[in-house]
Amino acid sequence: MMLTNLISKRETEHKRKYPDVELIRLGIGDTTEPIPEIITSAMAEQALALSTTEGYRGYGPEQGNQELREAIASTVYKDLGVEWEEVFISDGAQCDISRLQMLFGSGVTVAVQDPSFPAYVDSSVILGQAGGLDEHTCRHANMVYMRGLPENNYFPDLAKTPATDIIFFCSPNNPTGIAASRSELQQLVDFARKNGSIIVYDCAYASFISDESPRSIFEIPGAKEVAIEVASFSKFAGFTGVRLGWTVVPNELRYATGSPVIMDFNRIVTTCFNGASNIAQAGGLACLSKEGQEALRSRRERYRENAEILLEAFKSLGGARAYGGKNAPYVWVEVPREGRGSTPSSSRRSGWELFDEILERSHIVTVPGIGFGPGGDGYIRVSAFGHRGHILEASARLKALLMP
Amino acid sequence: MMLTNLISKRETEHKRKYPDVELIRLGIGDTTEPIPEIITSAMAEQALALSTTEGYRGYGPEQGNQELREAIASTVYKDLGVEWEEVFISDGAQCDISRLQMLFGSGVTVAVQDPSFPAYVDSSVILGQAGGLDEHTCRHANMVYMRGLPENNYFPDLAKTPATDIIFFCSPNNPTGIAASRSELQQLVDFARKNGSIIVYDCAYASFISDESPRSIFEIPGAKEVAIEVASFSKFAGFTGVRLGWTVVPNELRYATGSPVIMDFNRIVTTCFNGASNIAQAGGLACLSKEGQEALRSRRERYRENAEILLEAFKSLGGARAYGGKNAPYVWVEVPREGRGSTPSSSRRSGWELFDEILERSHIVTVPGIGFGPGGDGYIRVSAFGHRGHILEASARLKALLMP
Repeated sequence: MMLTNLISKRETEHKRKYPDVELIRLGIGDTTEPIPEIITSAMAEQALALSTTEGYRGYGPEQGNQELREAIASTVYKDLGVEWEEVFISDGAQCDISRLQMLFGSGVTVAVQDPSFPAYVDSSVILGQAGGLDEHTCRHANMVYMRGLPENNYFPDLAKTPATDIIFFCSPNNPTGIAASRSELQQLVDFARKNGSIIVYDCAYASFISDESPRSIFEIPGAKEVAIEVASFSKFAGFTGVRLGWTVVPNELRYATGSPVIMDFNRIVTTCFNGASNIAQAGGLACLSKEGQEALRSRRERYRENAEILLEAFKSLGGARAYGGKNAPYVWVEVPREGRGSTPSSSRRSGWELFDEILERSHIVTVPGIGFGPGGDGYIRVSAFGHRGHILEASARLKALLMP
Repeated sequence: MMLTNLISKRETEHKRKYPDVELIRLGIGDTTEPIPEIITSAMAEQALALSTTEGYRGYGPEQGNQELREAIASTVYKDLGVEWEEVFISDGAQCDISRLQMLFGSGVTVAVQDPSFPAYVDSSVILGQAGGLDEHTCRHANMVYMRGLPENNYFPDLAKTPATDIIFFCSPNNPTGIAASRSELQQLVDFARKNGSIIVYDCAYASFISDESPRSIFEIPGAKEVAIEVASFSKFAGFTGVRLGWTVVPNELRYATGSPVIMDFNRIVTTCFNGASNIAQAGGLACLSKEGQEALRSRRERYRENAEILLEAFKSLGGARAYGGKNAPYVWVEVPREGRGSTPSSSRRSGWELFDEILERSHIVTVPGIGFGPGGDGYIRVSAFGHRGHILEASARLKALLMP
């Protein structure tokens, strides 16, 4: 990714300039806490079983092992009436997003939150849905950008949003860390129903929700007729390198022709995918056991506390506004040049300026918000997925900063 | 897959009709021999390391761990000058075939061997390259079918093949089990160079080659300028359920514009994929160690002997012609109705007829050749990836058969 390259280039330059300084990386949203042993043991056992005649397994179903599909349906979607046949096991949310894009094809119109996780736009570009990029506005001609603003909880103004075939919606949102409320999601579902849109609901951070915000789009009445949910073990269980996720395509979701979307997705999965690793799937099953869930809870709590520490540290910067942290381990920060109060564009720092200033003065790597869409400019995203020691050190450095 | 469903339906009916008979499944090409312990131990160790602070790893590079990429470059492509940066680790060949299709997009023309592994046509259909299906000829309007015939070693007649942007070529071929010779592959490379085509060379079965046939397209002079190679640990190491493969995109491969294909593939991999499971990658590295390769050799030998047993058994059927087996654990069989000699179409059994007859009379499940393209009709594919006991029992049943 271009952005990653630009960030590493600046990192390298910084290390050359300050060879003795310890850099703290709060950029990429990568997990750092070990996976609970009850889960890794299950994977090790599955791996060893593959060297025995009784335990050896070859191809599994492309849609995933039934046991894991059932466990997801009965634990994650306990009271939501999701059938195990509607759950497709994947090797991660990002991979399923592009498999969904293959399902939709190049002839659809697509809306994304602005800011949001760049994989939606990037995969739209690859499929040929996006249209040309305007270098000045950083927008693709054929994409609909649903701008989020802090005063609206980063929920888009749907009254001003044109109808599209597909709506990518990420909650809790990456990068803002903000979860949509129940009434906001109800508006979104109603909007999609009215327009005949399909919502691709990315809830990769759902397990971090600490308030009453819905953890699944299927908590919203009517959602099964308009939404696909993409979920992941990556952040939930530290499986970023193990690779495991799932996607729910409800039987109720139909094209305008009446034909069920699940049949087409099944075709994509059986043609373009051959199932997630059986070892990772054994790990997923252990995550959903009572003991696994218990072990993961404290791990998640740790990241959440990290986010609180960072949120507080950024809020201490003169004039800074910091969002998120409560329902996802991301903090989303804006620091106007002129101190507290309004931020007319003359006094705004661009995201890169803020990135550079924080890097230069506190040796902390973040991500400039522009990487998440034009609406992200002026912000940085800070990841709370680091080790506690680094988070505390970052907090101390930030608190010592006096932003002009 | 339609075909799989049709086969399981017939299987279920057969079991209802003959509840006490032991069915032998030589259909799907799935491995059955356990993975050597030296390899599963490496995976178990990697899994357990993820529960320690020192051993935990999150996201790896989307292109795969450098150590594994280097090991593939230096062992599989020892004298062929493949750089580790040209090797992309995948979760299997089938997945990378569809990522390559995303790279090519819908606007390309595509040629496939007939018969061949159905994923090429199926993914072309999904991408919109294939055009409508003629139900009578079983051909898609926009695909070029390169017919293989036994008298030509199943190598297509290139003089009669129209130029296309993309050529999928599988050697050793699934389903025929036949590997292309060096001079045939040289013809193919020359043909692609002349026409500006890109060859997608699928060598998932290369490790089974027992004669002088090339194991990599890059053994052919000039291939790096026209070919991408898709390879897999699935059959090589029994990783069908573990999920690991790789694709080589040479730096020398350029579009007509001069722009390198590897840059675009890198973009697809970083946007639509997030790397293979780190546990599977640890297993891949163990496969390529000296001890790992040694342990895999005897396992492979076992499948090859199975293929010989089946080849001989089928050859004993009156008038049958059986191919393959020597360079891939598939046997490709035709049994004319009229006994030995020529097979005018009146005397040909269709693949389904042959499938049904073998199932009915010897309780062995195979795959009708039509599943691999119109050129496969009249044949069945028989997999030698079963346990030795089943292969011997199948052989005994076949030898007792008198085909009319």
